[in-house]
Amino acid sequence: MPVNLSPPEHLAPVPGIRVAATSLGVRKVARDDLTVFEIPAGAAVAVTFTRNAFCAAPVTLAREHLRAHVPRYLVINAGNANAGTGAAGMHAARRVCALVAAAGGCAPEQVLPFSTGVIGEILDTGPFEAAVPQAVRALDHDAWLRAAHAIMTTDIVCKGVSRSFELNGRTHTITGIAKGSGMIRPDMATMLCFIATDAPVDGALLQQVLGDAVDVSFNCVTVDGDTSTNDACVLIATGTEARLVDANSAGVQALRAAVTEVCTWLAHAVVRDGEGATKFITVEVSGGAEVLECRQVAYTVAHSPLVKTAMFASDANWGRILAAVGRAGVANLDIDAIRMHLGDVLIVEHGGRAASYREELGAAVMAAPEIHVRIELGRGDARACVWTCDLSHEYVSINADYRS
Amino acid sequence: MPVNLSPPEHLAPVPGIRVAATSLGVRKVARDDLTVFEIPAGAAVAVTFTRNAFCAAPVTLAREHLRAHVPRYLVINAGNANAGTGAAGMHAARRVCALVAAAGGCAPEQVLPFSTGVIGEILDTGPFEAAVPQAVRALDHDAWLRAAHAIMTTDIVCKGVSRSFELNGRTHTITGIAKGSGMIRPDMATMLCFIATDAPVDGALLQQVLGDAVDVSFNCVTVDGDTSTNDACVLIATGTEARLVDANSAGVQALRAAVTEVCTWLAHAVVRDGEGATKFITVEVSGGAEVLECRQVAYTVAHSPLVKTAMFASDANWGRILAAVGRAGVANLDIDAIRMHLGDVLIVEHGGRAASYREELGAAVMAAPEIHVRIELGRGDARACVWTCDLSHEYVSINADYRS
Repeated sequence: MPVNLSPPEHLAPVPGIRVAATSLGVRKVARDDLTVFEIPAGAAVAVTFTRNAFCAAPVTLAREHLRAHVPRYLVINAGNANAGTGAAGMHAARRVCALVAAAGGCAPEQVLPFSTGVIGEILDTGPFEAAVPQAVRALDHDAWLRAAHAIMTTDIVCKGVSRSFELNGRTHTITGIAKGSGMIRPDMATMLCFIATDAPVDGALLQQVLGDAVDVSFNCVTVDGDTSTNDACVLIATGTEARLVDANSAGVQALRAAVTEVCTWLAHAVVRDGEGATKFITVEVSGGAEVLECRQVAYTVAHSPLVKTAMFASDANWGRILAAVGRAGVANLDIDAIRMHLGDVLIVEHGGRAASYREELGAAVMAAPEIHVRIELGRGDARACVWTCDLSHEYVSINADYRS
Repeated sequence: MPVNLSPPEHLAPVPGIRVAATSLGVRKVARDDLTVFEIPAGAAVAVTFTRNAFCAAPVTLAREHLRAHVPRYLVINAGNANAGTGAAGMHAARRVCALVAAAGGCAPEQVLPFSTGVIGEILDTGPFEAAVPQAVRALDHDAWLRAAHAIMTTDIVCKGVSRSFELNGRTHTITGIAKGSGMIRPDMATMLCFIATDAPVDGALLQQVLGDAVDVSFNCVTVDGDTSTNDACVLIATGTEARLVDANSAGVQALRAAVTEVCTWLAHAVVRDGEGATKFITVEVSGGAEVLECRQVAYTVAHSPLVKTAMFASDANWGRILAAVGRAGVANLDIDAIRMHLGDVLIVEHGGRAASYREELGAAVMAAPEIHVRIELGRGDARACVWTCDLSHEYVSINADYRS
């Protein structure tokens, strides 16, 4: 069950953005699985994609379309990732874009396609022929929550968040939705994330703001270490007057803070709803010589099946954390300088168990649904944080049964 | 349950080597957990150790002892890894060596200590005071099988193998035992492995032969990606007449082949008895530009929780293999050139599912307890092989319950 995560009750519309979700009618149980976003002319759009070499057809096509055009529509289907589908997959993705373009009155290159679901099945575009025009007709400013549901696959809870922020004396809205639960080790973004704000921002600057926010949010979470073929994160800014262009201005700082907050909230939500998750775990590594080695240590701990099963068992088996730190591949690690805490409880110093450590202190920290692991390397000022969940029986069940 | 693995019925004694196993008397259920090997004067001894920075006290001490002396005794305890134990752990390891030295009549520096079991608990040397002399008195040429049992922890099946080989017209024996089931991603050797032969070999050459054999055997298996703090592999050669010194001689080729065969057999046995294993999986990557990138791809597939749970479910979910290859971090991968087989069934070519692939063909391969995944990168002549097992409910149960 998701860890301390409730679905949003409402998501604030973003001026200029219209959304619709509908059903392709291909599921055993009818549910929305097709989503369309309409972006107003003049908006700025930033996107980050997966770095998986076997990226899906829609990712390849979206990259191609972005090179020449600012998109006017996003189209997302859930249930079929259209990945590992070769030329047929590209053909299907192009057809879906053409359908949206025809219904929306723009060029196919102004449509960005996104897919999520099972890898390797050919995407049947037949059901899109009727569903796409229907979705475009239904576009509405206040349908973000419905879209948050429509993009889900193995997610249990739908994920979305709205915030407001001040920028040059005006109040702006930012709303984002994301999906993702398994195959989560984003390498640019999570499975799929769509964020919009009515702030006025230059496109190049918006891309920089998104890249920075993704780097400290989606790129710092992992469920199972498996980077998806379909990861993508979109940030739209619909404001057109007095666009922000100075990266160091107070306005951009406010925007950065808002985007980072929304990305972080959604990235945490993906982990809280991680497949089989019963614990939300923060692995914080400080005192490194550089950020990269801090991340390396944090990810090694966060990916360790032994650490993750101990977390599932609420077992303060700190020796497994120590072993993971030791195998992280950091050169010339001085193990005597390393200190580790579980919550506020010191567990390791001087190369072994802290003298003050008592099993019951560790057990109390492990009993909670949220666990903070702190590792101080004692060799510099760099720090990094990675968020993950535990490895439970439910994870095995979900992934052993997924296609059957 | 172990995959196609039976315990040895008998292990051949190696001339010159005496072995004993006894109980420290600290277990809830009495079982042998202390093992002593006696090595004859004049033998050559080669050892490889873990590269985990948080290596255990016995590893640190064994390295220290090896610098100045050829060992006369090995002492192994199972149940407590004496890792993450700081200065107290070093003190305990020294005490155990001193006890063996006193009973065996040598210097403490001629004893190599090994430990395996739970990390982070202080090793109580009290029970060793009586048990060590008792073990040394019981030393016998024909006790390898008993030792193979005594070094086990979460292993279900004891692992040992004997072979004979010809060398310069004489027949020699080689016998090896190993333990290991979880925290298996050896980085120099598996958890613990002890091999002896009566072949006559120079010490430096023996180290080279062991290093090469370990590199293509123990260093190519993984159960859960977690490198132990206590990995060690020992190879003893007791022959003293006409020692082999030429690395390119026919005699050394015969020795290499025998050592590699024994190491590979034992490494596979560790995977077959991997925690919760129901499948033995070979991931073979060929056509790489270099061996390193082949290993990188093979390990990424072998460590993927999504691939491992699909294997557990006997589900030919090849899209997960494709996604793992794509995220392995190989630069400039041409996905159109990649071909993948499950057994003899072509599953992927031209960036997607092979046209000839049928679900029932993949399902037939997946139904077997041994599965061969072949990935051809199509960019060179290098190849690598990694052996692993699946990720089952039993793995989670074993590791969520291990300390309780």
